[in-house]
Amino acid sequence: MEAIFHALRASNVARTQQLETYLRIPSISSEPQYGPDVARCARHTALLLQQAGMESVTVHETAGHPVVVGRWEKAPGCPTVLIYGHYDVQPVDPLDLWSAAPFSPRYHDNRIFARGATDDKGQVLMHIQAVAAILQQHGRLPVNVIFLLEGEEEIGSPHLPEFITTHRRTLKADLALVSDSYMWAENRPAITTQLRGLVLLDVVLSGSNRDLHSGSYGGGIANPLEMLARMLATVKDQTGTIVIPGFYDEVRQPTALVRQQWAQLPFDEAQYLQALGLTQGWGEAGYTLLERIWLRPTFEINGLWGGYNGPGGKTVLPAKANAKLSLRLVPDQDPDTMAERVKAYLLGIAPPGLSIEINRIPGGGSPCAVPAGWFALTAAQRALQESFQVAPLYIGEGSSIPVVADFAKILGIHTLLIGFGLPDANAHAPDESLHLPTFHTGIESLVRLFYHLRDSF
Amino acid sequence: MEAIFHALRASNVARTQQLETYLRIPSISSEPQYGPDVARCARHTALLLQQAGMESVTVHETAGHPVVVGRWEKAPGCPTVLIYGHYDVQPVDPLDLWSAAPFSPRYHDNRIFARGATDDKGQVLMHIQAVAAILQQHGRLPVNVIFLLEGEEEIGSPHLPEFITTHRRTLKADLALVSDSYMWAENRPAITTQLRGLVLLDVVLSGSNRDLHSGSYGGGIANPLEMLARMLATVKDQTGTIVIPGFYDEVRQPTALVRQQWAQLPFDEAQYLQALGLTQGWGEAGYTLLERIWLRPTFEINGLWGGYNGPGGKTVLPAKANAKLSLRLVPDQDPDTMAERVKAYLLGIAPPGLSIEINRIPGGGSPCAVPAGWFALTAAQRALQESFQVAPLYIGEGSSIPVVADFAKILGIHTLLIGFGLPDANAHAPDESLHLPTFHTGIESLVRLFYHLRDSF
Repeated sequence: MEAIFHALRASNVARTQQLETYLRIPSISSEPQYGPDVARCARHTALLLQQAGMESVTVHETAGHPVVVGRWEKAPGCPTVLIYGHYDVQPVDPLDLWSAAPFSPRYHDNRIFARGATDDKGQVLMHIQAVAAILQQHGRLPVNVIFLLEGEEEIGSPHLPEFITTHRRTLKADLALVSDSYMWAENRPAITTQLRGLVLLDVVLSGSNRDLHSGSYGGGIANPLEMLARMLATVKDQTGTIVIPGFYDEVRQPTALVRQQWAQLPFDEAQYLQALGLTQGWGEAGYTLLERIWLRPTFEINGLWGGYNGPGGKTVLPAKANAKLSLRLVPDQDPDTMAERVKAYLLGIAPPGLSIEINRIPGGGSPCAVPAGWFALTAAQRALQESFQVAPLYIGEGSSIPVVADFAKILGIHTLLIGFGLPDANAHAPDESLHLPTFHTGIESLVRLFYHLRDSF
Repeated sequence: MEAIFHALRASNVARTQQLETYLRIPSISSEPQYGPDVARCARHTALLLQQAGMESVTVHETAGHPVVVGRWEKAPGCPTVLIYGHYDVQPVDPLDLWSAAPFSPRYHDNRIFARGATDDKGQVLMHIQAVAAILQQHGRLPVNVIFLLEGEEEIGSPHLPEFITTHRRTLKADLALVSDSYMWAENRPAITTQLRGLVLLDVVLSGSNRDLHSGSYGGGIANPLEMLARMLATVKDQTGTIVIPGFYDEVRQPTALVRQQWAQLPFDEAQYLQALGLTQGWGEAGYTLLERIWLRPTFEINGLWGGYNGPGGKTVLPAKANAKLSLRLVPDQDPDTMAERVKAYLLGIAPPGLSIEINRIPGGGSPCAVPAGWFALTAAQRALQESFQVAPLYIGEGSSIPVVADFAKILGIHTLLIGFGLPDANAHAPDESLHLPTFHTGIESLVRLFYHLRDSF
């Protein structure tokens, strides 16, 4: 591998320029006027895959933005790696908070600043350059590779599940590999081993057939806002434990190993809270803050509204109260079962005389966790440790990455999640950046990863 | 009085035409483009007072719409009656729900249909025509009369308290008389003896310094929406009784007389609830629905909001939760004391680590009740019974009429509240109407009232 690393270092400038060119394309998937740019970015991505030495590269049209697939499969008996990423980017508003134009990359303080630098073009290009470097040096890869690069991640990947389903035979792989997340800190690589699932619910509690005057009617009849507050207030006890029957039935207790790994993370809770403007956390008794976020299911009120919300007062007794709720699920909780349990609980405590409607909101997904001892984890740990000279951290992630659940459900494979963004990369915010030393070291670690994946398979 | 009644009946058509002309003026106080019409209506109101025989009539300019004052004070030793009403009207939206143009009066089914017919031009004109009839017949009134007619009632009377304060010496009276409310039913006159007071509060509960992703942070920290729901849910126990310390300390228990009067009201609770689309009431245990609305203080959530309320779901853990609250007060509860008690309670149960701000919203007022045996009640009961041939009902009103509290506070007088609108008059709604037989009988009852007020004084 030393020859590859030598060649990589020798091409630092050229490869950074390749990144710069990629970042100049304003591939904002959510804004229709950027449609031609997104299409151009898809073609450019295909070109990068061809130049890297992929044997087959296809730009697949969808009802939305294209999916780009690149394949190299000449390593029989070796594992096949499905590398997922996305070439679309977030919008750039508020533009006036950027130090420079978001699609005119700027170098400063060892970083390149541009929209998409970390999320996710920079990380996509790391994989392409790693593969290119190996092929250039040796003419062959130690693993089979399928790139699956989409252009709709920032708008919720509306067409990807169907694409994966339709192409499930040709997307068959032994693992998925995704770099669309973060390091723990500079020079502290991290492997995400747990993702929570998600269920979304919409609640409407209705009383009278119209809004009423709270002076003329108040005290006589139930106020849906008050009743919904009372209902939602019963969901957790004083210690933050959810009392909905069966809520924790399938929840795995954290293993001693995970608890130990997480207890040893260099995590400063006071500093974390301070950055949020808080002095203390709150949540389920008996678990640390990280455990609560990564490993415990939650019941969260994402929206609650009804009545008057303008200036001054209005003495209204509203006809309806509304809530948007979400559940975060952990292995082995099933979204449908959990949604039904929550619905049954809320229906059961709804005040007599009011009518309640509870509906699933489309979206969400299943929780994921990779098994301890999985061969890809071993390979990733070695690769990251050798390149960054420090053991990677095993972490969880409280939010969902729907594509990971799709890979599990449709293709039956686990996903290796290794992120190279720094926590202050400002993805989704002005002045997004990518730390260039991490970019280069990360590419080396990916080269190592492909070899170790072959060896540990 | 028979001569007066004879003359009144003989002038039915002319007096109805006088009403029609009054209703043609679109005196919508809330919409600036109607400003000239409101001013014209003030001058027209002054003209009506002059034609009725008032000795002094003044149109007082204010920072808003004018106040019209008319005086006749040549009955020394007799009581002075301050007759309050308003010549401005509600807007007419939605216009397409009107059967005919709102300012082109239409006769149908013994009613006159137009905006302002009941609220309040029709009822104002009843007082003017009653006074005019007496003066025309006898050249003098049995009582002294001061008309105080404003043009900003439908926008909250922003300039009236200051006007009353400034003119408190010349507005001195023995009672106020207001007809801006409703009969119990056709031919069932009612006297309102209790009005609840009002306190408005604004609550903001703040957590993190920005909205957060509920997947990444949910479970770790307190959600202000959830915490506000939990706080508000504690305010009442399961039986609807408010647990805020001191909340009921000054509340008068209903007298046996009032409970008996109200228990005998022809009130069909099931029908009342059905009209609201409800099958059952809800509220403080131990009191009937009418007692809860008229005689018991309440704590009501008028608005509650935070987080996401659009289509679909959004996994946000909001930084803030907001509520608009109102208290309805009964005699002898003091608005300031009650506001402080509620603030102290909410501050006391606010979760540690979140910040809470509670502010009074301007507006509101004190509760009012006229004393049992008050001379004006006796006079009104006689006048209404003689004219409508049925005993008037004594009722309460759950909402506040701020001017009544102002008369009590600034002038130190009680207010006699007699309404001549029918419950289906559609004040504030399309197709507002006034029942003409009630209009004419009501004028007779007002003539009687002035004589009985003199006699019972």
